[in-house]
Amino acid sequence: MTTDNSVQVSVLGLGAMGSALAGALVKAGYATTVWNRSPGKADDLVAQGAEVAATAGDAVRAGRLVIACLLDHASVHEVLDPLADELAGRTLVNVTTTSPAQSRELADWAARAGVAYLDGGIMAVPHMIGQPGASVLYSGSADVFDQHKPLLDLWGTSTYFGEDAGLASLYDLALLAGMYVMFAGFMHGAAMVAPAGVTAGEFAAKAAPWLTAMTGAFEGFAAVIDGGDYTVEGQQSLHFSHLGDLLAASSDQGIGTEVVAMVQRLIQRQIDAGHGEEGFARIFESIKQPG
Amino acid sequence: MTTDNSVQVSVLGLGAMGSALAGALVKAGYATTVWNRSPGKADDLVAQGAEVAATAGDAVRAGRLVIACLLDHASVHEVLDPLADELAGRTLVNVTTTSPAQSRELADWAARAGVAYLDGGIMAVPHMIGQPGASVLYSGSADVFDQHKPLLDLWGTSTYFGEDAGLASLYDLALLAGMYVMFAGFMHGAAMVAPAGVTAGEFAAKAAPWLTAMTGAFEGFAAVIDGGDYTVEGQQSLHFSHLGDLLAASSDQGIGTEVVAMVQRLIQRQIDAGHGEEGFARIFESIKQPG
Ligand SMILES: NC(=O)c1ccc[n+]([C@@H]2O[C@H](COP(=O)([O-])OP(=O)(O)OC[C@H]3O[C@@H](n4cnc5c(N)ncnc54)[C@H](OP(=O)(O)O)[C@@H]3O)[C@@H](O)[C@H]2O)c1
Ligand SMILES: NC(=O)c1ccc[n+]([C@@H]2O[C@H](COP(=O)([O-])OP(=O)(O)OC[C@H]3O[C@@H](n4cnc5c(N)ncnc54)[C@H](OP(=O)(O)O)[C@@H]3O)[C@@H](O)[C@H]2O)c1
Repeated sequence: MTTDNSVQVSVLGLGAMGSALAGALVKAGYATTVWNRSPGKADDLVAQGAEVAATAGDAVRAGRLVIACLLDHASVHEVLDPLADELAGRTLVNVTTTSPAQSRELADWAARAGVAYLDGGIMAVPHMIGQPGASVLYSGSADVFDQHKPLLDLWGTSTYFGEDAGLASLYDLALLAGMYVMFAGFMHGAAMVAPAGVTAGEFAAKAAPWLTAMTGAFEGFAAVIDGGDYTVEGQQSLHFSHLGDLLAASSDQGIGTEVVAMVQRLIQRQIDAGHGEEGFARIFESIKQPG
Repeated sequence: MTTDNSVQVSVLGLGAMGSALAGALVKAGYATTVWNRSPGKADDLVAQGAEVAATAGDAVRAGRLVIACLLDHASVHEVLDPLADELAGRTLVNVTTTSPAQSRELADWAARAGVAYLDGGIMAVPHMIGQPGASVLYSGSADVFDQHKPLLDLWGTSTYFGEDAGLASLYDLALLAGMYVMFAGFMHGAAMVAPAGVTAGEFAAKAAPWLTAMTGAFEGFAAVIDGGDYTVEGQQSLHFSHLGDLLAASSDQGIGTEVVAMVQRLIQRQIDAGHGEEGFARIFESIKQPG
């Protein structure tokens, strides 16, 4: 893919993530202007060829494409509200982490200001930017995404979800939810084996390939959920997976049970509602329609 | 590896799993005798070359190595208690799912009866037996494991954890805990994006590679846990990951929050105890020492 690196880019915010994003642009030969609220953070980037702007306004005026990577929603407004006139006619790609509602609010703000807006959610830590594992989710203006995809692809795999600017944030949060919950499950397993003298490192070496293999079940669960019929043959029934043994074994080890008790409650509510013979995917309904 | 398939093997229990295990032995050329409480289940195996025994006693007498794959701990005692004298001097590999305490109890029973005992936990569904993804965990007699490893390897990757017969069950349950909790996290994510018109299938296609990539974090968490110092630099602090945004976005989508609230409680207890600046791995302590 050829990168149209004739576009002038400005990056607002040189925290850990903003610096990584700007660094990838400079490295690819984009004319990049950078700005950060506190001074000193641009030095490395300037040494690599970036221009530094004294004010956010100078940075916005220097770029056709403005990237915002600030702390949160409030800081984006704090920096950009006074610059609405300067931003008009320009393009804003905001990769600051925001909630779906906040992303939609910023898209509305941008529309009123005459700014083309693309919202991004970064699924990576800074050192992964530009590496194979990094992924960035986008929603908002399809035109902006299509036009700048070669640039966006410098950071990681770019995926576009739709015109609703909140979609990328929503997906981002949904994937993070999966991650945090998986981490809690890993910690619970490590805590179970610890009293038997198994180190967390030994457990991690088993748990990582095991859980990787088990992600293979998502597709089957999803087919059942999307099909809307949880009575599909050949699945493990909710009665089978009541998790009583797991809770008992956790208690026997002297550790807390709240991590697995959470899953058991999701199962139990479906059993109580008369769905005990249906498949495990049915716990989706316990989350969708809270008790 | 050469397989010593001169050993006479008997398999007790021809449910979905016992049939798969016996099938792999017959296919590899072992002289295999099979028995099941209800008749008719041996027909396929007999067609492939297995012998069928009329009683569990006949099956035990026919084998030097006896494999038990029954429903649960109680059914193992029901079948084997009357056969303790016949089993003396023989080897018992019990792959019935049991709790760590039940595995230890069976090991003690076997020791009193003069039976060499190996306990197994099968991390696979029946159709995976003999395929690359299957894994079976063992603990109990190291001699039995070493002597019969070529046979055990026919079912999947065999791992031995130690002389304590309860270890394999404990590991099995710890890995299952991780799996069930990860599944709940996946379902939560799918429920979050569903109101935006994203199918569970679309979400699964993103979540599987994402969570696979995130299992890469286990090793780092484990190093922190095993090191015992949660103040390590460069980690995301507990204050950072308070999950407030995640809960708010879940509520905004009209779905339940209990899955992510569970993780938040683990985090909050550590923050409340003054550890908010420490790393995420610290939630291990919330599980190890329940509040
Ligand atoms: N780091 C990650 O692993 C990661 C991963 C995914 C997404 N993200 C997201 O990327 C964004 C930036 O993260 P980061 O890791 O770069 O954070 P960071 O290192 O803490 O940097 C925060 C940046 O925001 C600026 N800032 C904060 N409040 C401001 C205000 N009121 N006005 C102007 N500038 C302000 C800071 O400027 P000063 O230098 O003047 O304080 C700094 O440039 C966040 O939304 C984060 O959630 C980060
Ligand atoms: N299937 C899996 O995915 C899987 C995965 C990992 C571990 N396991 C474990 O493997 C073991 C067997 O599972 P499975 O899937 O084969 O179960 P299954 O298809 O339900 O078969 C159960 C077997 O146990 C026998 N049985 C039950 N109660 C008995 C009793 N009181 N006396 C004698 N025999 C009795 C049954 O005999 P009848 O035919 O006479 O009822 C049948 O042979 C279980 O402990 C299970 O947890 C299974």
